[in-house]
Amino acid sequence: MVRQNSIPEKMTAVAISMPGGPMVLKPEKRDVPQPGSGEILVRVHAAGVNRPDVMQRKGIYPPPPGASDLPGLEVAGEVAALGEGAARWGIGDRVCALTAGGGYAEYVTVHASNALPLPAGFTDTEAAALPETYFTVWHNVFERGALKPGETLLVHGGSSGIGTTAIQLAVAFGATAIATAGSSEKCQLCVKLGASRAINYREEDFVAVVKEATGGKGANVILDMVGGDYVSRNYNAAAVDGRIVQIATQGGAIASADLVKLMTKRLVHTGSTLRPRSIEFKGALAIALEAQVWPLLATRKVAPVMDMIFPLNDAWRAHERMEEGDHTGKIVLDVS
Amino acid sequence: MVRQNSIPEKMTAVAISMPGGPMVLKPEKRDVPQPGSGEILVRVHAAGVNRPDVMQRKGIYPPPPGASDLPGLEVAGEVAALGEGAARWGIGDRVCALTAGGGYAEYVTVHASNALPLPAGFTDTEAAALPETYFTVWHNVFERGALKPGETLLVHGGSSGIGTTAIQLAVAFGATAIATAGSSEKCQLCVKLGASRAINYREEDFVAVVKEATGGKGANVILDMVGGDYVSRNYNAAAVDGRIVQIATQGGAIASADLVKLMTKRLVHTGSTLRPRSIEFKGALAIALEAQVWPLLATRKVAPVMDMIFPLNDAWRAHERMEEGDHTGKIVLDVS
Repeated sequence: MVRQNSIPEKMTAVAISMPGGPMVLKPEKRDVPQPGSGEILVRVHAAGVNRPDVMQRKGIYPPPPGASDLPGLEVAGEVAALGEGAARWGIGDRVCALTAGGGYAEYVTVHASNALPLPAGFTDTEAAALPETYFTVWHNVFERGALKPGETLLVHGGSSGIGTTAIQLAVAFGATAIATAGSSEKCQLCVKLGASRAINYREEDFVAVVKEATGGKGANVILDMVGGDYVSRNYNAAAVDGRIVQIATQGGAIASADLVKLMTKRLVHTGSTLRPRSIEFKGALAIALEAQVWPLLATRKVAPVMDMIFPLNDAWRAHERMEEGDHTGKIVLDVS
Repeated sequence: MVRQNSIPEKMTAVAISMPGGPMVLKPEKRDVPQPGSGEILVRVHAAGVNRPDVMQRKGIYPPPPGASDLPGLEVAGEVAALGEGAARWGIGDRVCALTAGGGYAEYVTVHASNALPLPAGFTDTEAAALPETYFTVWHNVFERGALKPGETLLVHGGSSGIGTTAIQLAVAFGATAIATAGSSEKCQLCVKLGASRAINYREEDFVAVVKEATGGKGANVILDMVGGDYVSRNYNAAAVDGRIVQIATQGGAIASADLVKLMTKRLVHTGSTLRPRSIEFKGALAIALEAQVWPLLATRKVAPVMDMIFPLNDAWRAHERMEEGDHTGKIVLDVS
């Protein structure tokens, strides 16, 4: 194994001391993990915070078998050691990566194929904000949802990390984006990012607005993290042959669906979760992203919207902020 | 226009005298229709009876704009006249065809591309039993549902026209078929047609049986005409990456759906209706069927399951039989 000389045996990590509120997140000393075959050890400089971390903290989203018990699904930093066969990377390379957990720590192992180079000119905190949202949006909007140039994407939660990414990528690839958000400030952000129309869901009915904005046709793809009563409304807002992609259920996991609408509009209602997918699947996504999206990041045609940065030891504050729901864009931990 | 000399001006047709029960179906005299550009006039020898005809009779499924007000979505017979550009066919050719309505009559016009030759050795009544179910099953199971060799198809309503066709085609193309039906006789029919397992839904839970029969994996494709509480059960019976294709909602149009299951299994829930599709779409289906399925019909590797044949003027009896639900396979009208 090739490794830096300076790697300590112990590291600081933020662990879930017990299921519960933000305060259960506590710094502790852990052994620095060893990269296995095909893996790299990343010296973490920044770690992204995501809603699944909050759910894991609450005890309702246990890590998959074999994954770290530490939270944290994405990091940026530098390559500190190479496991056998991790030939793409060299010691000191700056990378960002999707992890199987364990991102809230000074070191984490990731599969070499699930890491990407830092886009040119990116800081670590910006780069740590990329993997979860970009992997998620690319797969769900462009692969699963098959959004095509000229089509219309409706993005719920338009000011979230996922939402801001989906708006920018849809527009960058020649589609029209319409977004929903919960305040006029958040709506303004969506428009600034390229949405042709932002809908304050507290004041307007998104079905009526989408219909009007599309000349009665509806949205070709809907990216939804709400679920609940949004499902029947999504069916109404979708175009014929529309694809509705479910990536979370913040508004309720059980939904009432109108099957006649599903049939007569020939809708496709699907969804996915990223974390349990195979290393190979995530590696294929990384290849697609590096080819299609990394050039857009390097020129800042698209860029992560940054909310706030907290020190690793204050991860509990980052969770508190996410649960308050006032954030726009990505919350990141500084681990330098 | 090329036409037979013997075509009368008037014909017998069975019309829906008013919305209601089977007895509202009444024979009357109509003008023989004229084939338009790209159309052929078919001298009908037999007409298939389908559930949408029953719904149309009840007044809850109006014909699409421009379509005949007469019921009847499929026929077999001979070509009696050719509209401009209907070059494929010659006068006297024996065909079966998908119609836009108007099948319950001595003559009907259809688009030339929506007709297929009678499979070798087929009677008119057998051939009239083909178009609706074969177009529907081919599109929904093999195109929309993308059933592949080695996969498992769960077919609800296994003894219906659609069900018997889906079982046979799935098995003919190397998949495993599991069917549900409402009696042990109907279950026996499903097994005779090639289903590896038939489930009497009055006695057994199809979710448990499908799980057991697939070693816990579930069905890769589910063809469902029930809806209602079957939706959540279909989500449970489906395999990871499973496709659930909704083609009717006989058990209820509003369903409760578990979105977490949709996401974690990465299900695709979709559906379609055939009648409103374009001439071009149906023409493409006809080409696929003639290439892939017609050879299997000619060798009787697959064949329609025939229930009962009624004279055209007794169409009301055919509807009565369909609504009683005791039929297995196709009900056809004899129009010779």
